[in-house]
Amino acid sequence: MEWVYIEDLSDYIGRKVEVRGWLYNKRSSGKIRFFLLRDGTGILQGTVYSPDKEHPLFKVYDELTQESSLILRGEIREDKRAAGGYEMTIDDIEVLQIAEEYPITPKEHGTPFLMDHRHLWLRSQKQHAVLQIRTELVRAIRDFFDGRGFRLMDTPILTPSACEGTTTLFETEYFDQKAYLSQSGQLYNEATAMAFGKVYCFGPTFRAEKSKTRKHLIEFWMVEPEVAFAELADIKRLGEDLIIYIIERVLENSQPELDILERDTRLLEKIKKPFPQITYEEAIRLLNEKGNTMQFGDDFGAPEETLLSELHDSPVCVTHFPAKIKAFYMQPDELRPDLVLGLDILASEGYGEIIGGGQRIHDLALLEEKIKEHKLPREAYEWYIDLRKFGSVPHSGFGMGVERMLSWLCKIKHIRETLPFPRLLYRIYP
Amino acid sequence: MEWVYIEDLSDYIGRKVEVRGWLYNKRSSGKIRFFLLRDGTGILQGTVYSPDKEHPLFKVYDELTQESSLILRGEIREDKRAAGGYEMTIDDIEVLQIAEEYPITPKEHGTPFLMDHRHLWLRSQKQHAVLQIRTELVRAIRDFFDGRGFRLMDTPILTPSACEGTTTLFETEYFDQKAYLSQSGQLYNEATAMAFGKVYCFGPTFRAEKSKTRKHLIEFWMVEPEVAFAELADIKRLGEDLIIYIIERVLENSQPELDILERDTRLLEKIKKPFPQITYEEAIRLLNEKGNTMQFGDDFGAPEETLLSELHDSPVCVTHFPAKIKAFYMQPDELRPDLVLGLDILASEGYGEIIGGGQRIHDLALLEEKIKEHKLPREAYEWYIDLRKFGSVPHSGFGMGVERMLSWLCKIKHIRETLPFPRLLYRIYP
Repeated sequence: MEWVYIEDLSDYIGRKVEVRGWLYNKRSSGKIRFFLLRDGTGILQGTVYSPDKEHPLFKVYDELTQESSLILRGEIREDKRAAGGYEMTIDDIEVLQIAEEYPITPKEHGTPFLMDHRHLWLRSQKQHAVLQIRTELVRAIRDFFDGRGFRLMDTPILTPSACEGTTTLFETEYFDQKAYLSQSGQLYNEATAMAFGKVYCFGPTFRAEKSKTRKHLIEFWMVEPEVAFAELADIKRLGEDLIIYIIERVLENSQPELDILERDTRLLEKIKKPFPQITYEEAIRLLNEKGNTMQFGDDFGAPEETLLSELHDSPVCVTHFPAKIKAFYMQPDELRPDLVLGLDILASEGYGEIIGGGQRIHDLALLEEKIKEHKLPREAYEWYIDLRKFGSVPHSGFGMGVERMLSWLCKIKHIRETLPFPRLLYRIYP
Repeated sequence: MEWVYIEDLSDYIGRKVEVRGWLYNKRSSGKIRFFLLRDGTGILQGTVYSPDKEHPLFKVYDELTQESSLILRGEIREDKRAAGGYEMTIDDIEVLQIAEEYPITPKEHGTPFLMDHRHLWLRSQKQHAVLQIRTELVRAIRDFFDGRGFRLMDTPILTPSACEGTTTLFETEYFDQKAYLSQSGQLYNEATAMAFGKVYCFGPTFRAEKSKTRKHLIEFWMVEPEVAFAELADIKRLGEDLIIYIIERVLENSQPELDILERDTRLLEKIKKPFPQITYEEAIRLLNEKGNTMQFGDDFGAPEETLLSELHDSPVCVTHFPAKIKAFYMQPDELRPDLVLGLDILASEGYGEIIGGGQRIHDLALLEEKIKEHKLPREAYEWYIDLRKFGSVPHSGFGMGVERMLSWLCKIKHIRETLPFPRLLYRIYP
């Protein structure tokens, strides 16, 4: 008999098949026993009807505990009332294992307990839905870039030098020297962009930050496009297009999961491009009008990001930051050299920065000056400087944090639910 | 004027466009000057014709050095003789930067020199072609799994325990404890497979191995599927299907790059499934017949893999390895408990192991026994043991090394060319 996944059952109506999975729930009603089976792709209700109280499958029913593994065999019927829209009339049940008493119950569990049982918590409906949307999100990101001719260029995790300071870096011994876990593939992207025109990297990045907030992970995935010949305005449009594309794809393909999460999607549907764009200085003026005391030279914190994002339905683009709060490689504004052509995109609904990037310095002398000014070891950046000697061009890029984006899409409170096995401050198990 | 990429020129015949890139080469012939421009997506020949020796664009021609950055503007014409099939009649050239003398010349360079200049070497035709095929390979792998309903489940890089011994692990401080860089997402995949049915992870992995061979990288990408309810034969078929799919996709979409690499693809075209399957013991018998002295309990080395792969046109599947040379989690054979249901797939043409995997232990008592036997710290594996308590099912999976696969597809001699910035023994720059 053919083994079929629940998500494919629509092709098997009226046919006898085998479905393999785990008991999600069971109930009885008079002469019927209902078996709810999950197989990872959906939930199927299987039924056994018998006037005989001693029916052997009734005994199986009595023995089965939550998460027991089993194979159901029987005929698939369409049934609008059933979860998923299909039902199986069970002929036969093969039990693989009666599960021990399952530790996760419908009652409230504390977060430490759930995180200790993350390997099982993943099976719960809401956790399952978030990670299912993650799968769609990642695929949407890749389709977006692949469809626009971007070349995937995997950048190394083990790096000899730091992109943005060393205090938040994980360090390791690399044979006879020190190496650090990458916080960004950007510098490497700049090299591959000069070879391939438009590139992206997409991999895990690391921040050894002692911050315990709802928005921070120690290890997270980031997608970073870089485009040769692109300037700030080009990369802003690319970021907008990416966000719009992701939202459309998730609304199109993940509605069942968004329903499980009770995500009100009307706010997502309202998002239109172009996104409102303000400069850092305009942002400060707006914040001060609202009573916030942020001053020129301060970085946005969570309260500032929330205030700014509440002004509009769509995400907000902030540009032209003070050079002194941004990285050494950022292109200064021509008329205001104290400002750089940086770009932050803040998600709506208070979810904070989802995109950070901007235009990079392409002038050799200026880059050399900035490396000196920031007291960076020139020899470590020799190759990066080379890119300004052999056909330098204006170029821009950004990074988008996958987990931040997913938190917003799902409107979940804590970023720890956006990865199967999140790495948090002091949390590395399981 | 519209900025267009060279790979899209077929849509712009007869139109005036702008192409941005770098001077790849130039030549002159009487009253014509030829500019070969690369933009990362292709190479375009632009021409300037003039009877006037003092034509301003002739002066530009004289000044331009290799890899100078420029913008060409002019009309696109179809021209079968030109590289890429199109030519531009140049109206105007905007020079962004005259490049310094380019260090990589057509003459032979030593490998250390090229590796020190990897950020520029990437622009060379052959390096470009290999990485272009890498982009196609990665996309093919993702399309294969996504198309079959596998859920992408990113597994952590920072892990508290080791999958296969600690001698080849990179170690780092994780706040108050030690962490190691992951060598495999498999154990985590086993948890997500029980939640999602069929999953894969796809990310960088690390081996702090002091081996300096043509086949080893310190940091490499691995795709690892895991399927609940799958047994050895199922996972063997999955591996075959994956390899066949990748080859078909690369032959279909990467022919220009394979031509640049002068890859004879006839051997790839011959590959058919099912692949020949032999047991480890049969492999030893075959090797001994050929004069190789390998004995039961030895691991395959490069000479053995090469000998075995030469026996067939298609890759060879080897199964049923001695338990003592394999990992603790491998399912023993029912009739021969000294053997485990492992699976190695050896590429043809001597490229060695590209897939390694097999069936995992699903019995609780047996797993506990193996953990004890291998002297592993039980507390670190408590969550992994849990998976055998709550609806345990037979399950199987494997890992495929992307760079090994790419080396074979491109038939390149050294694996260092398969990544933009490879990490090798003592090599972490640039």
